[in-house]
Amino acid sequence: MIIGENNERIDYLFDSNYKIIQSKDVFSFSIDAVLLAKFVSLPFTKGSIVDLCTGNGAVALMMALRTQVQIVGVELQERLADMARRSVMLNKLEGRVNIICHDIKELSSFHDLHQCDVVTCNPPYFSNKQTIRYNLNPSLTIARHEVHLTLEEAIETSSQLVKQKGKVAFVHRPERLEEILSLMLQYRLSPKRLLFVYPKKGKNANIMLVEAVKDGNPGLQVLPPLYIYDEDGNYTKELLTLASHRD
Amino acid sequence: MIIGENNERIDYLFDSNYKIIQSKDVFSFSIDAVLLAKFVSLPFTKGSIVDLCTGNGAVALMMALRTQVQIVGVELQERLADMARRSVMLNKLEGRVNIICHDIKELSSFHDLHQCDVVTCNPPYFSNKQTIRYNLNPSLTIARHEVHLTLEEAIETSSQLVKQKGKVAFVHRPERLEEILSLMLQYRLSPKRLLFVYPKKGKNANIMLVEAVKDGNPGLQVLPPLYIYDEDGNYTKELLTLASHRD
Repeated sequence: MIIGENNERIDYLFDSNYKIIQSKDVFSFSIDAVLLAKFVSLPFTKGSIVDLCTGNGAVALMMALRTQVQIVGVELQERLADMARRSVMLNKLEGRVNIICHDIKELSSFHDLHQCDVVTCNPPYFSNKQTIRYNLNPSLTIARHEVHLTLEEAIETSSQLVKQKGKVAFVHRPERLEEILSLMLQYRLSPKRLLFVYPKKGKNANIMLVEAVKDGNPGLQVLPPLYIYDEDGNYTKELLTLASHRD
Repeated sequence: MIIGENNERIDYLFDSNYKIIQSKDVFSFSIDAVLLAKFVSLPFTKGSIVDLCTGNGAVALMMALRTQVQIVGVELQERLADMARRSVMLNKLEGRVNIICHDIKELSSFHDLHQCDVVTCNPPYFSNKQTIRYNLNPSLTIARHEVHLTLEEAIETSSQLVKQKGKVAFVHRPERLEEILSLMLQYRLSPKRLLFVYPKKGKNANIMLVEAVKDGNPGLQVLPPLYIYDEDGNYTKELLTLASHRD
């Protein structure tokens, strides 16, 4: 049975015909996942892609809309990995998207995942240092707070998995910009493309996306700003047409 | 005589009745100076402000439009400092703006400049590591290239001059964002407000402004993007009305 218990439902993936199994009890993908899957530079036919903290698989599934390359999604929580696997089946993507349930800090034995072309990651946003009250739902707490994975561990692992000159793309909060940039530099990832996303005109950015190149040259580009909503409250054309250049 | 030789001329300061002495032989202020003077948070009646790398005084003069507080501009090159002093006289600002000709790396004996409320700086943009050919004009080379002052020295000096919880604002190029943020953190300056400036819609940012607080708490805001020109090639309303909140 594709749909399990516990408030599961099938939604369409943003702006596509792909479907995804969600549950408000554990996780629903957000606009952040959509942005990451559309922002990252992807090879089209050759190479390999690893999506860390894949959750219910939204980023991995949406990247499969843009590339023929094999994608591996890694998720710590068995319940979420299981939902992601069933979404892969629902979209008949078994040959192209593979979901692994594993702690990403312990991926060294997965030799197939090393030397990959692209690593994407939508990590937990809230540092344990931050005094935000943990979500009472343990599954949501793991997805949102750095209880099992710190930002540094996510960036270190990404750098270990990606090949020389390969790309690492993260989505995060602008509040932690300086931390992300300095950790990337520390782990040999040179930030090259930075995109700030604003909910609408006149507001501060609330999402940032960064793409780095392993052992790349310095030289950061700050891309034109992206607004989520226009003045009528609809998604902007820029969001709907966002897709990165290919290499 | 207010106007000297060597191709000097009097221009109006951007969007104001203040005048400034310029010369294409040595230096003309750019939109970067306008942005810095409008972006920085300024006290209105009490405190002290130091503008480093003041050049022909554009930032110092424009800040005097926004505050009654004493402003000291520091410039290494005697010719530029002299032009700045004459512009101060031209605008009858002798009581409020003071220009010092000095190497900013050696300001430790100027006790009056320490413990100030705000430090601004529009430093040379091009690192000596960058393989850009030096400008053949020595005055422009000093103003644009890090031959006499590195970014690290400018940030270190700013941190020494500003009091606890005082503000330090820099204008620079987005290509060096990660370097600026990490140097600020290294010298106890917490970046709090970041503004990216785009020449027009659809282009990458080409100017960045950052304001940090000495020994401030973490928590960076990325402000709404600022465009210089609208679709008709005129200055945008946002640029003309840009002025920071006061404290």
